[in-house]
Amino acid sequence: MAYDSTNIFAKILRGELPCISVYEDEATLAFMDIMPQADGHVLVIPKEAGETLMDLSPEAASAVVRTTQKLARAVKQALNAEGIFVCQLNGAAAGQTVPHCHFHIIPRSGGDPMRIHASARADDAKLRGFADAIKQALA
Amino acid sequence: MAYDSTNIFAKILRGELPCISVYEDEATLAFMDIMPQADGHVLVIPKEAGETLMDLSPEAASAVVRTTQKLARAVKQALNAEGIFVCQLNGAAAGQTVPHCHFHIIPRSGGDPMRIHASARADDAKLRGFADAIKQALA
Repeated sequence: MAYDSTNIFAKILRGELPCISVYEDEATLAFMDIMPQADGHVLVIPKEAGETLMDLSPEAASAVVRTTQKLARAVKQALNAEGIFVCQLNGAAAGQTVPHCHFHIIPRSGGDPMRIHASARADDAKLRGFADAIKQALA
Repeated sequence: MAYDSTNIFAKILRGELPCISVYEDEATLAFMDIMPQADGHVLVIPKEAGETLMDLSPEAASAVVRTTQKLARAVKQALNAEGIFVCQLNGAAAGQTVPHCHFHIIPRSGGDPMRIHASARADDAKLRGFADAIKQALA
């Protein structure tokens, strides 16, 4: 399918919409999911335009997974999480809601239930607190 | 945690246990999950020893995601799937059952429920049929 450049992550990359970012390099951006499935839920996206992982160049896919590694370590430390669930949904049938490839990094501890995807808007101040802790863990 | 070289994926990599493989290159191996959450469920693993994505070198992580891209395309085509769910579990708290980093590639279509992780051993002949179709899609 043709890439839809009006999707919200494309707008975030162009600076047309805000995000609470935690990391950026030349090929990737990481920011807080505003409808988190757990506290500290971070999204990692490539700057390259691609709807799914299958649409990305190998270089963009590599950049995204390297940033995902870095952020997974930082999120685990900042949230004192026991485990990290990484997922990446391709297509509406797989649950993808924004048509720009993204990796979810979701902290997991002791059987805490994950909240339903995209169910409730989190409080910005709380998200900023998690973002600050994650940036500190990255530093 | 120190890497446990007696885990079943390490044994598969050393040829001490069999698998129904669909793809191999110098850095990665892909094979059928024998307790699939959906028909066509494939696992991609790095040859590098690492318990989680966070433990891998950036090179190994890049190799795994590139193989995941290739296999996601092939699985989607071979299973005629509408979407592809990719996930990667780090730590028992996130649901990881084998302590060698692995990416799950799970075909999704029209709201079919995913089966419970590691709940039932699939029939080998059926798995070999899916593997053949996936290898054909890769070719």
